[in-house]
Amino acid sequence: MENKLTHTDENGQAKMVQVTDKAITRRCAGAEGYILITEDIAHAIRENTLKKGDVFSVARIAGIMAVKKTSDLIPLCHPLMVTGIQVDFALFGAGEKYDVPAIRAVCRVEMEGKTGVEMEALTGVNVSLLTIYDMCKALSKEMVMTDIRLLEKSGGKSGDYHI
Amino acid sequence: MENKLTHTDENGQAKMVQVTDKAITRRCAGAEGYILITEDIAHAIRENTLKKGDVFSVARIAGIMAVKKTSDLIPLCHPLMVTGIQVDFALFGAGEKYDVPAIRAVCRVEMEGKTGVEMEALTGVNVSLLTIYDMCKALSKEMVMTDIRLLEKSGGKSGDYHI
Amino acid sequence: MENKLTHTDENGQAKMVQVTDKAITRRCAGAEGYILITEDIAHAIRENTLKKGDVFSVARIAGIMAVKKTSDLIPLCHPLMVTGIQVDFALFGAGEKYDVPAIRAVCRVEMEGKTGVEMEALTGVNVSLLTIYDMCKALSKEMVMTDIRLLEKSGGKSGDYHI
Amino acid sequence: MENKLTHTDENGQAKMVQVTDKAITRRCAGAEGYILITEDIAHAIRENTLKKGDVFSVARIAGIMAVKKTSDLIPLCHPLMVTGIQVDFALFGAGEKYDVPAIRAVCRVEMEGKTGVEMEALTGVNVSLLTIYDMCKALSKEMVMTDIRLLEKSGGKSGDYHI
Amino acid sequence: MENKLTHTDENGQAKMVQVTDKAITRRCAGAEGYILITEDIAHAIRENTLKKGDVFSVARIAGIMAVKKTSDLIPLCHPLMVTGIQVDFALFGAGEKYDVPAIRAVCRVEMEGKTGVEMEALTGVNVSLLTIYDMCKALSKEMVMTDIRLLEKSGGKSGDYHI
Amino acid sequence: MENKLTHTDENGQAKMVQVTDKAITRRCAGAEGYILITEDIAHAIRENTLKKGDVFSVARIAGIMAVKKTSDLIPLCHPLMVTGIQVDFALFGAGEKYDVPAIRAVCRVEMEGKTGVEMEALTGVNVSLLTIYDMCKALSKEMVMTDIRLLEKSGGKSGDYHI
Repeated sequence: MENKLTHTDENGQAKMVQVTDKAITRRCAGAEGYILITEDIAHAIRENTLKKGDVFSVARIAGIMAVKKTSDLIPLCHPLMVTGIQVDFALFGAGEKYDVPAIRAVCRVEMEGKTGVEMEALTGVNVSLLTIYDMCKALSKEMVMTDIRLLEKSGGKSGDYHI
Repeated sequence: MENKLTHTDENGQAKMVQVTDKAITRRCAGAEGYILITEDIAHAIRENTLKKGDVFSVARIAGIMAVKKTSDLIPLCHPLMVTGIQVDFALFGAGEKYDVPAIRAVCRVEMEGKTGVEMEALTGVNVSLLTIYDMCKALSKEMVMTDIRLLEKSGGKSGDYHI
Repeated sequence: MENKLTHTDENGQAKMVQVTDKAITRRCAGAEGYILITEDIAHAIRENTLKKGDVFSVARIAGIMAVKKTSDLIPLCHPLMVTGIQVDFALFGAGEKYDVPAIRAVCRVEMEGKTGVEMEALTGVNVSLLTIYDMCKALSKEMVMTDIRLLEKSGGKSGDYHI
Repeated sequence: MENKLTHTDENGQAKMVQVTDKAITRRCAGAEGYILITEDIAHAIRENTLKKGDVFSVARIAGIMAVKKTSDLIPLCHPLMVTGIQVDFALFGAGEKYDVPAIRAVCRVEMEGKTGVEMEALTGVNVSLLTIYDMCKALSKEMVMTDIRLLEKSGGKSGDYHI
Repeated sequence: MENKLTHTDENGQAKMVQVTDKAITRRCAGAEGYILITEDIAHAIRENTLKKGDVFSVARIAGIMAVKKTSDLIPLCHPLMVTGIQVDFALFGAGEKYDVPAIRAVCRVEMEGKTGVEMEALTGVNVSLLTIYDMCKALSKEMVMTDIRLLEKSGGKSGDYHI
Repeated sequence: MENKLTHTDENGQAKMVQVTDKAITRRCAGAEGYILITEDIAHAIRENTLKKGDVFSVARIAGIMAVKKTSDLIPLCHPLMVTGIQVDFALFGAGEKYDVPAIRAVCRVEMEGKTGVEMEALTGVNVSLLTIYDMCKALSKEMVMTDIRLLEKSGGKSGDYHI
């Protein structure tokens, strides 16, 4: 197999991949993930959403701020200056997406730069879901974060990617 | 329903829950999660593991450092002084846990304090998995982080919890 | 004058004041501040508040998260583990508090510890106001943050303080 | 009214405004603010200034470092790479600017980039004033941070701004 | 040899050592280090010190703030709430300590807690020296940071330590 | 002497040097440093290195992550977006480099930008050495970090530099 784990050098040691000579291009990435919740939590969020929407507001801000911290969290990520972040949520009833109620988080990130923003989009999704877990865990700890993955990316030499 | 989302006040506004008067007790929490990978990635990690184990080393450090950043990532989490963190990984072949190869991350956290460390353990798992994704994404972007959940917690008024 | 600037030593050099031997007591502090805004901004916030309340939601989260960063921002502040944070806003029409419309931010912080949480409460107010400025500045840059001060503190050897 | 709060989308949800396609231009901003102090504090600072100037030194460093943290503090601010920061202070006696003694903080920031640096300049002023408060609060808590505003900005499509 | 590297488990994997059950005792540590400089730099610092002392002021603040960041920098360090930090400098002429002029940095840290503060004191010294390097490097890059070591520690089961 | 400390203005006050108008060029820097260790520590690291190499793995990640935090640690450093980081270690027996066993850390950083990356490379070395100290200090505290210096830099108006 000729593939290589690009973040390790010939001796298997970690390094931050050199991208100094890469071209600056427009980069976009979108990622999604779900958190499975209980009926009680779905009910409480729905009520709250109708009034103030605060669970999603807090999770949205947490996701946006986490995108900006990506290179501080993921050891070999390059520091980037993202130029756009959007985080959206949708609440699904039992049977719609999963057997139990679920919340979908989607994070889209864009930038002009030398490396992609996939990790930024995925980090936004992960921290948004963690924040939902935190805000709802007094009702039940039986939540599961699941099916977190890249939806699409564009820009860069490796080309576009879509599910 | 009498349950309440504890992080929002009577007007649905976010606040950091007051725990000033809670007793200091010993708190432990463990969480787990999986990342589904391709055969190529499993092979590359296995080879690398036998030699240097670096993918897991980097992901382990990332998880441990993320545990310490939990209250900086999750808006309404209390700052805590954790006193023990352990992150472990296991690589499963196709058919063992899932149809495809998968890596399991487990994070255990402990502390003496006024609030639980569930979010710390879950954050450790999430960032470990994100780091594995980052280190392997040059081989394939078809990885999925999944089934991330609390395994157990002990300490505190709400009692113990086990799956 | 016998008063001393406690953060500088006998040679006028900065140091973090030693509080190792101070007793651990319950500490509370509240601070307030205002941002003067235009009629257009007041109108836009009011409309938005009736619908989603997002300007205040974002500013509230920013204030809460900033409280937790206080010792990272203010060089000689001790690191603390706050156990409760609340941030509230009120919108006043022209003539109510000031000649122009204004938003009042109040931040209350509590903790059991060796030093007070005044700086934490003030930092929460400051960053909340900065966030309101940021979210509204496309409408007008003629906003002024003003009258930011401590409302009250309790706990500690220096005794309670109220305006 | 056609004005819009640019940081919220059509549903009133927060997002980081997309600036990917904006031109890179030279951006400058200056902001100012005051902290009202007591005669005792003014005296102590003056004495200290004559000798070592440390109160202002610490506040200056705090302001400069805070400018670099702006996008970590203000949720919807873009991460930027500022290329120049200057923070200056002036001490006014009672009756000069206000009835009581006051310190003026001015922060100027510059950069080549896609968005303005107003929030950076204002954050520098706010954290400088908070630091002065922290260093002097053992003498009196009757300090007030006030009249914090943008002085000027240049660069960008929205044009220049001066008070 | 029965000694063990305490930060690695039986399989050689990194973990944060569990200190949950350790007693809380008063901990102190002091560390020192030197930066060798040129005559030109020594002269410039001396002149500046006589006037404003700013090189040392900035390095002192940098050292104090770095102490508070230790657990964010050193992967397996426990988060701690230090209760006192002091950073001092002394300038030596050529021939006094080394053949060339040198600056000595000393950092003392104290706390009541479950682990020692040696890493905090050493981190304070390191970042103070780095800051001196940064502020003087326009004059010459032939500076060397050297002889950085622990001076003393007290508290904890392993007993006191003095050079 | 006409040289000036570039980080202080005409009054000796600290500022972040203005580099807005500097050209963007390719910048590289390498730095090195040593930590003197005991025979016991050298033995333990060697054994561990042969098996898992974890001490160096952790120190390498710590160094890489610290490079990305440089402008947050060194008050007057410009925020930069580095595009490549490499950290390497070598273990020397007693008598090879020093009378006692020693570990050499080398950090190389590169970027396209307006200022050099010397401080980034030196910070990477310092934090790598601190991490080695932390991981080995249970065996002996008689370690010394020494001879930390710039090896080379290229790019920028001031020209190249080599030892």
